[in-house]
Amino acid sequence: MKKEKMKKVVVIGGGTGVFVVLTALKNFPVHLSAIISMADSGGSSGILREEFGILPPGDVRRALIALSNSDNKLLARLFNYRFNESYFLDGHSFGNLFITALERITGDFQKAIREAGKILNISGEVIPVTLDNINLVAQLKNGQIIYGESAIDRRKEKNSSKIQKIWIQPKAKINPLARQTILAADYIVIGPGDLYTSIIPNLLVSGVTTALKKSRAKKIFITNIMTKKGETDDFKASDFIITLEKYLGKKILDYVLINNSRPDKKRFKKYKEEGAQFVEPNVDQWGRALVIKKDLLRERGLLRHDPKKLGTTLGEIILAEKTYGKLIK
Amino acid sequence: MKKEKMKKVVVIGGGTGVFVVLTALKNFPVHLSAIISMADSGGSSGILREEFGILPPGDVRRALIALSNSDNKLLARLFNYRFNESYFLDGHSFGNLFITALERITGDFQKAIREAGKILNISGEVIPVTLDNINLVAQLKNGQIIYGESAIDRRKEKNSSKIQKIWIQPKAKINPLARQTILAADYIVIGPGDLYTSIIPNLLVSGVTTALKKSRAKKIFITNIMTKKGETDDFKASDFIITLEKYLGKKILDYVLINNSRPDKKRFKKYKEEGAQFVEPNVDQWGRALVIKKDLLRERGLLRHDPKKLGTTLGEIILAEKTYGKLIK
Repeated sequence: MKKEKMKKVVVIGGGTGVFVVLTALKNFPVHLSAIISMADSGGSSGILREEFGILPPGDVRRALIALSNSDNKLLARLFNYRFNESYFLDGHSFGNLFITALERITGDFQKAIREAGKILNISGEVIPVTLDNINLVAQLKNGQIIYGESAIDRRKEKNSSKIQKIWIQPKAKINPLARQTILAADYIVIGPGDLYTSIIPNLLVSGVTTALKKSRAKKIFITNIMTKKGETDDFKASDFIITLEKYLGKKILDYVLINNSRPDKKRFKKYKEEGAQFVEPNVDQWGRALVIKKDLLRERGLLRHDPKKLGTTLGEIILAEKTYGKLIK
Repeated sequence: MKKEKMKKVVVIGGGTGVFVVLTALKNFPVHLSAIISMADSGGSSGILREEFGILPPGDVRRALIALSNSDNKLLARLFNYRFNESYFLDGHSFGNLFITALERITGDFQKAIREAGKILNISGEVIPVTLDNINLVAQLKNGQIIYGESAIDRRKEKNSSKIQKIWIQPKAKINPLARQTILAADYIVIGPGDLYTSIIPNLLVSGVTTALKKSRAKKIFITNIMTKKGETDDFKASDFIITLEKYLGKKILDYVLINNSRPDKKRFKKYKEEGAQFVEPNVDQWGRALVIKKDLLRERGLLRHDPKKLGTTLGEIILAEKTYGKLIK
């Protein structure tokens, strides 16, 4: 009997979306890699970028925690701990300082991530999409230019203009390890996550879309459950796919996963205040891609994807490819 | 054949002195514990004490590093790393932030030390002398009162008045674990280290001298190699012993280790600028204690005890007690 090789699954994104997908897939017999956007410029990561000139550690930290197998549960809690009582340390995540110190000692961001991964005993890999220091720039429909991921991310003005176009400055090239990983992948999961500030920044790095097109991996896109004020206002599922494909430059998606479970009104309250709406699952067919509409929603709390539900659905695709695989060949 | 139990060796002090003694003894087949002064109020530790109300982590960190067996050498380097490029993080030691975050998560300084010890894979134990929050106060011979270990430690004025008396505020009681450890010890090593700001602060904690007197352990005092400006100016070896015994309240020393190797003039340069002098080894006999005068000096660099030379001498006492043991019975 031939021993089957473990499938290689690559998750591309940033923010908490990557954390959820990695958590969903962590206990599956697959080799997991996370390719992380380096455009983050807010909060603790933003301060550390400014002060140390390093790449942003925040999203890397979240991915490392998701992949940690350390028996020492405290270590993961420690990594997520924020210093909230101190004027000087205010808001810094301990894990970010951990990665920063490792970067300073090793002189290499990627090595720092690898060493942090050893200490946290992670399975899989966390890979910066680029090793170049970049910033995100957005042009709004009214012509206004906004510099920096954090500034784009936090636009809260009522009736603010929509994003017309987004790019990075200066130009950046793909991290060779990210390229290899994409090319060797069996499955690539894109999203969920803030479309313009966590997902697309990966595609703006030179070499990423080329690698994605070249890769024979099945590409799975997971649309968001909620829109984001100033970023994806009024977006329906179709708008997420259209926008992603615009930046991909080619229709390469094999699967689109759309949540179709509408939360009850109570759970919307916090989101209404923030100007976020439920993403209408208005897509049934999408070219050659297989559209899977399912209840992917967490039962309570924040309106996010439920790692178990997501795991089940991704598992059906990735491990078996029985149910859906044949349909798209 | 009866299996011999490992000898229990307790090192009492603070600062780099404890680090040197622990390093000296680390590879010996003994059970090592370090009892650490909690009076430190300077630098990174001082800021963290003020901002988080925690006990000072700095000397604990040094002891943990000395006892670390982690295969991951980077972890020990990381623990000692200081953030020097940042305005906000300036001067903070990463290890101090590590202990602070652990204290915040576990809610318990001693538990935080234990968890940090696990992560660093230490052999032995690091024990705060007290779990009470204390400050050191000194009265000078001219009547002036100085508050805080850091202020006492850093007096650099020329011809500044000598220390008349030192105490802690508020009163503090011994950490029960420190008490047990002292009572169960076979050997207790006191010093080297800043006499008034690292060594004596341990003895000022209520219950410590009582435990030391009650303990049947052999007590070994290691005098300093150099005096310290504002603290032990003009002190000879005899002054170190006299002052220590004054705060011990009883002649309980079994051994006194005195360095008698005088460094060449070049190595004094930095120390002259700092107003530090060589401690004259002016003691040959000291009551019932055995005085051991030896070359204990590092061959190069800072004028500190050489861990190897110290290890050899302490090893002769602790492991064999052949050479000296009979003499003092």
